[in-house]
Amino acid sequence: MTQKPKVAERVADLRSEVGRFHAAGEKVAIVPTMGALHAGHLALVREARARAERVVVSIFVNPTQFAPNEDFSRYPRTWDADMRLLADEGVDVVYAPARAEMYPDGFCTRLDVQGPAEGLESDFRPHFFSGVAIVVAKLFLQSEADFAMFGEKDYQQLKVVTRMVRDLDLRIRVVPCATVREPDGLALSSRNRYLTDEDRAKAPAIHRALQAAAAAIHQGQEPDRAAETAADTLSANGFAVDYVAARHAETLAPLEGRAEPVRLLAAVWLGKTRLIDNIGL
Amino acid sequence: MTQKPKVAERVADLRSEVGRFHAAGEKVAIVPTMGALHAGHLALVREARARAERVVVSIFVNPTQFAPNEDFSRYPRTWDADMRLLADEGVDVVYAPARAEMYPDGFCTRLDVQGPAEGLESDFRPHFFSGVAIVVAKLFLQSEADFAMFGEKDYQQLKVVTRMVRDLDLRIRVVPCATVREPDGLALSSRNRYLTDEDRAKAPAIHRALQAAAAAIHQGQEPDRAAETAADTLSANGFAVDYVAARHAETLAPLEGRAEPVRLLAAVWLGKTRLIDNIGL
Repeated sequence: MTQKPKVAERVADLRSEVGRFHAAGEKVAIVPTMGALHAGHLALVREARARAERVVVSIFVNPTQFAPNEDFSRYPRTWDADMRLLADEGVDVVYAPARAEMYPDGFCTRLDVQGPAEGLESDFRPHFFSGVAIVVAKLFLQSEADFAMFGEKDYQQLKVVTRMVRDLDLRIRVVPCATVREPDGLALSSRNRYLTDEDRAKAPAIHRALQAAAAAIHQGQEPDRAAETAADTLSANGFAVDYVAARHAETLAPLEGRAEPVRLLAAVWLGKTRLIDNIGL
Repeated sequence: MTQKPKVAERVADLRSEVGRFHAAGEKVAIVPTMGALHAGHLALVREARARAERVVVSIFVNPTQFAPNEDFSRYPRTWDADMRLLADEGVDVVYAPARAEMYPDGFCTRLDVQGPAEGLESDFRPHFFSGVAIVVAKLFLQSEADFAMFGEKDYQQLKVVTRMVRDLDLRIRVVPCATVREPDGLALSSRNRYLTDEDRAKAPAIHRALQAAAAAIHQGQEPDRAAETAADTLSANGFAVDYVAARHAETLAPLEGRAEPVRLLAAVWLGKTRLIDNIGL
């Protein structure tokens, strides 16, 4: 079913495509990406297709979610490969705005979600969710899509976006999609391609450590203690640990009681590459 | 043409009303208010009617735009009188959400417009535009109206809201409406009813001082200097002056050159009542 997606570079073009779909009574799902697509993104595209007659994929490496010292300039850009993959998936529209289309001259609006954005990633990337919130709000409002697909891989982001949609009364429905993993358990990520062979061989230890923590909690261990053990294991194996944490699976607040749903989340460094992962219980 | 407006207290009810209008091919204009309606609001309603087949007036005293020491609790609430006025204007829908409908449990999203929100009011009410931005964004997104009417009386607010709409790619069109004044020049405001008779008699001096400054600028005086003179005059007449300023009429930035469009803005206190006004050149 290879078919070249339409490429929209301007909000007006995107809206006219989506407007045509809606006028025909078709639902539209958007998959926001920064390109450098992998099988995790393609799983989102397939889930999008299962929900809606039409699928829009946005490709925009969003500068506002990178700090000056982060990897914005070296973030992988693989346009031709991305387009081939999306054509193979039968994606209808690729929205690829220039920076000036997203953030025109004089742009000066900030969007900050507190609650689920507090702690975890924010302790290490304080600018991050502010950048994510504004670009995602804009993508939702620009596209007027009915559904938005987000991977559980970026679990805190999923919760922040879900909360923002509720708080701003946006019409779009955020659909969480399961993390896609390599056979050895490593969560797919555009940043995996930064890994040296040696680090790639080590990387599955992140998922294993989270699984071990989950098993320990199931067997009655205090979640915070289990997270601590996972952090110790990873440190001992050469990872620099930003955090391993057990949190309330919905609010991401620290746990207060035994009855709460738990999510285990981790962010670690392997060399110069920062990787995140999480699992539910 | 007295006709009782429909009262919607929930987003879902508001959307179903507006949805019916849109389905019939009718345009919808919203007039956001905090109630305590006066002829200035009614002028907005009439401008709304001139633009759109259907008019929605929202009445919501928004707690997030008041600081703890401000007049939220004593802000005038005149529901019955407001409803009579809006019935006389043939308003279609009054949207009057409860606080929990606007800010449900767990609400945690902040919206900050920099640029036009910097300085002036923000120097004295640092919380103000953040509260305005979030409630106005929500009203726009909840109502899905085509036009929004804003008075030039709150000129900085008008510019902040206009900028926010552009930055967030909202579909709504913000329509500025001229300030309505008493015969003696005092700009209409819900807070005028706080004034003692003595202060009410003094209040037109604000508009006179701005007019004198505008005349001086026309005759070649430096705008900043003219604003300073206006501030001095008001101080000498018993006003406590928060600011009188000459600013770029679009960006509200301090003036840099002679060719720029100028707006004169003032905020002063008469006793315990804070009044604002502004004029163009």
